[in-house]
Amino acid sequence: MAAEMSGGDLSRLRQLNALAVIRVLKGQPSLTLTEVAKRTGLSRASTEDVVRELLRKGWVAEAGATAGGVGRPARRYRFRADAGRVLGVDIGGHKIRAVVADLDGNVQHTARVPVTPEMGRLERLEAVDRAVEEALEGAGLAGADVWASGVGTTGLVDGGGKVMLSEALPEWTGVDLAAHVRRLAPAPVLVENDSKLAALAECWRGVARYAKDMVFLLAGLRTGAGLVIDGKLHRGFGNASGEIGALPVLGWIRAQEHLGGEAGDVFAAAREGDKAALAAVRKYVKDLALGASALVLTLDPQMVVVGGGFSRSADVLIEPLKRELDRWCIRTPEVRMSALGDEAVVLGAVRLALDDVEDRLLDGRTPLVSRP
Amino acid sequence: MAAEMSGGDLSRLRQLNALAVIRVLKGQPSLTLTEVAKRTGLSRASTEDVVRELLRKGWVAEAGATAGGVGRPARRYRFRADAGRVLGVDIGGHKIRAVVADLDGNVQHTARVPVTPEMGRLERLEAVDRAVEEALEGAGLAGADVWASGVGTTGLVDGGGKVMLSEALPEWTGVDLAAHVRRLAPAPVLVENDSKLAALAECWRGVARYAKDMVFLLAGLRTGAGLVIDGKLHRGFGNASGEIGALPVLGWIRAQEHLGGEAGDVFAAAREGDKAALAAVRKYVKDLALGASALVLTLDPQMVVVGGGFSRSADVLIEPLKRELDRWCIRTPEVRMSALGDEAVVLGAVRLALDDVEDRLLDGRTPLVSRP
Repeated sequence: MAAEMSGGDLSRLRQLNALAVIRVLKGQPSLTLTEVAKRTGLSRASTEDVVRELLRKGWVAEAGATAGGVGRPARRYRFRADAGRVLGVDIGGHKIRAVVADLDGNVQHTARVPVTPEMGRLERLEAVDRAVEEALEGAGLAGADVWASGVGTTGLVDGGGKVMLSEALPEWTGVDLAAHVRRLAPAPVLVENDSKLAALAECWRGVARYAKDMVFLLAGLRTGAGLVIDGKLHRGFGNASGEIGALPVLGWIRAQEHLGGEAGDVFAAAREGDKAALAAVRKYVKDLALGASALVLTLDPQMVVVGGGFSRSADVLIEPLKRELDRWCIRTPEVRMSALGDEAVVLGAVRLALDDVEDRLLDGRTPLVSRP
Repeated sequence: MAAEMSGGDLSRLRQLNALAVIRVLKGQPSLTLTEVAKRTGLSRASTEDVVRELLRKGWVAEAGATAGGVGRPARRYRFRADAGRVLGVDIGGHKIRAVVADLDGNVQHTARVPVTPEMGRLERLEAVDRAVEEALEGAGLAGADVWASGVGTTGLVDGGGKVMLSEALPEWTGVDLAAHVRRLAPAPVLVENDSKLAALAECWRGVARYAKDMVFLLAGLRTGAGLVIDGKLHRGFGNASGEIGALPVLGWIRAQEHLGGEAGDVFAAAREGDKAALAAVRKYVKDLALGASALVLTLDPQMVVVGGGFSRSADVLIEPLKRELDRWCIRTPEVRMSALGDEAVVLGAVRLALDDVEDRLLDGRTPLVSRP
C-alpha cells in the first residue's frame, strides 16, 4: 500500500517541513545542517532544500561557522527572529503600554503613556495612539511593518475585538479596539481581557511555564482571573470565563475595600507589624481566597499564580492566602507570585499576536516556501 | 523536495489509513469502495487493499449489494461493531448497573443488582461481581472477551482506579476498583467519578452532543458536577474538578436538606401547587443555582445539563433554576434536562472504555492491519 499524496498535500508537507526546521532552529542559538536533519527527522537532501529556501526568503541566516573536531568547520544556521515584528498594547487605568517585539517575543522597544482611571474614551484612545506611535518609532518601524497586534484591556471583550462591558473605565463599553489599532498598524489585531493575557504570559515567560492547567489571579485595584486549561487560554463560550467576581457571596466585589484608598501603605504597615493593617490584609485575603477557592474547586488546577499590582506585596500576602485556600480546597494547588509584575499583560498581548502569526504559518496563509 | 517516509512512518500511515476507513464506515450503514475512497481521500487501489485486510481481520463485513443505476450492483461494506465488546459498570448507592456494549456503544445486555447506601465494602463489591457476571452471561461472553471496562463510582477517584475519598458510601474510601473489576474481565479497567461519566455521556448520546464546553449538574440525593471543556472531559490535576460542594457558602451541602427525606413526594406536591412544597423546591433550587453559578461564571460554558434522580422533576425545577442562574451569571448558558436519566453514568462508563479502545487503535497498540 502506497502513501497517498495529492498536490495540495505536498504543498502542505513542504510548509510543515519548513515549519519543523524553523521550530528546531528557534530553540537553539544555531545548528548545522546535520543537526537540523537529525532533529527534524528529514533527509539530508530535504533539509538542504528547505534551509536554502528559508535563507532566500529571509527566515534563516547563516551563523558563524564553528570548528568541531577535524576537517573543515560545518556551516551553522540560525532562525532570524527579526524577520518579522509584532505589536503588544496594554490599556490600563493608570498607564498605556505599547511594545514592539520580534518573532521570538523579545521586546525591542517599550513606550509608556500615563493615563488616569477617570479619563474618557477619546482621551484614552489618544493615549493609545501616542504609545503605539512611540513604540513603532523607537523600533524604527512603520505601522505596515507589523505582522500582528495584540491588545489587552480591562472588561469583557467580544470575538471581534470590541469591549462588550467595562465597569472600571468610563465610556469604555462599546469601544472597537481592533478597528482603532488597525488604523495604526493594518495587520490583524487581536483583543483580549487583561487577566486572560496575564495568564497567557505566565504560562509563556512566567512562573507557570510547566503548568498545563493554571488559574491566574489579578490582585490589585480590581480583582480578576484568567484560566489556562490543557495548555490553552480558556476564553469561554461568550468570552466571559473567570468572572467569579459577579457572585457577591464569593467576596471579590468587597475585597479591596478592606485596604482603603492606599493599599500600598496598608501592605507596608502590615510588613512593619501594625495590627490594624494586618487585620485589613487578613480580611482582604479572606475575600480573595473565597473566590479563588471557587475557581480552584471547579478546575483543580496544577497552579495558582497571583499577579497584578498587589503581587509586589507577596511577602505579606502569600502565606495567609495559602492558609485560606487550604481551608476550603480539597487539594490546594501550588501558589506562586508572578515574576512578570506590571509587564504580564503586555507580554500576553505579544504572545497573542505571535500565536496569530504562527496560526497563519501553520495553515499556510503565510507561505514559508514556494509551492512545488 | 520529496516526502520523507521511514519504515515506522509507513506502518503508522497504514494504521491511520485503516482507521480512516473504519471511521467513514462507522458513520454509515454501508458504503461502496468508490464511496470509501472518496470520503477518505485514499486512492482506489489503497482503499481496496485496506478494506481487503480489514475484512480478513474481522473489522469489516460485506453488506448486501444494492443495485444503483445501470450495470452490476457495487459491493457494499460495513463496519463490524460486534468485532469487539466493552463493559460498563455504574456503582451507585441504591443500584449496581453493568452493561455489555459493542464497538458502536450499542448496549447488548444490561444487569441491575439492588444495593443500599448502608452496605459495607464487601457486600457492595459482591453485588458488583453479580452484576458484571450477569451482564456477561446475558451477552453470551466470558470475561476474556471484553476489550476494555469503564467503571463509575461516587467519590474522588485517582488515576490508577482507586477511590481516594467517598463520603457517601461507607468503607468505600481506598477500594481499588480497577483491580477488583480486572479479576472479572482482564482487559484494561478505567475508573471515574459518576458525575464526570454522566457529563461524558451527555456529550456523546445526550442533550449536549453539539456543546464543546458543558457543565453537568448531578441533582439528586447528592449534588455533584462534571465538566467538559473543549470537547474533552476535564478531570483536573488531581482528578478533583467540579468539587464546588466543598465551599459551604455555595450551598450544595445543605441543598437537599430543604427537600427532607422524600424528595419525590415534595416534587409531586409542588407539581400540585402545595405552598410548603413549592417553598421547599424554591430553597433547593436557590442553593443548587448558587454552586452552579460559580461553575458557570468560572467557565462560561455553552450549556448546563441537569441530570441525576431529580431530573425527572424537570417540570418543577427548570424554570426556577433558569431564573436563579439569570440572577447571578453574566451570560446564562442554555439549560437542558438530561434525557439519559438513570442510564447516564453507565453510558459514560461505556464511552470511557471505548475511548481506551480507540486510543489503542490510534497509537498502534492494537494493530488494525499487518505491518508492511
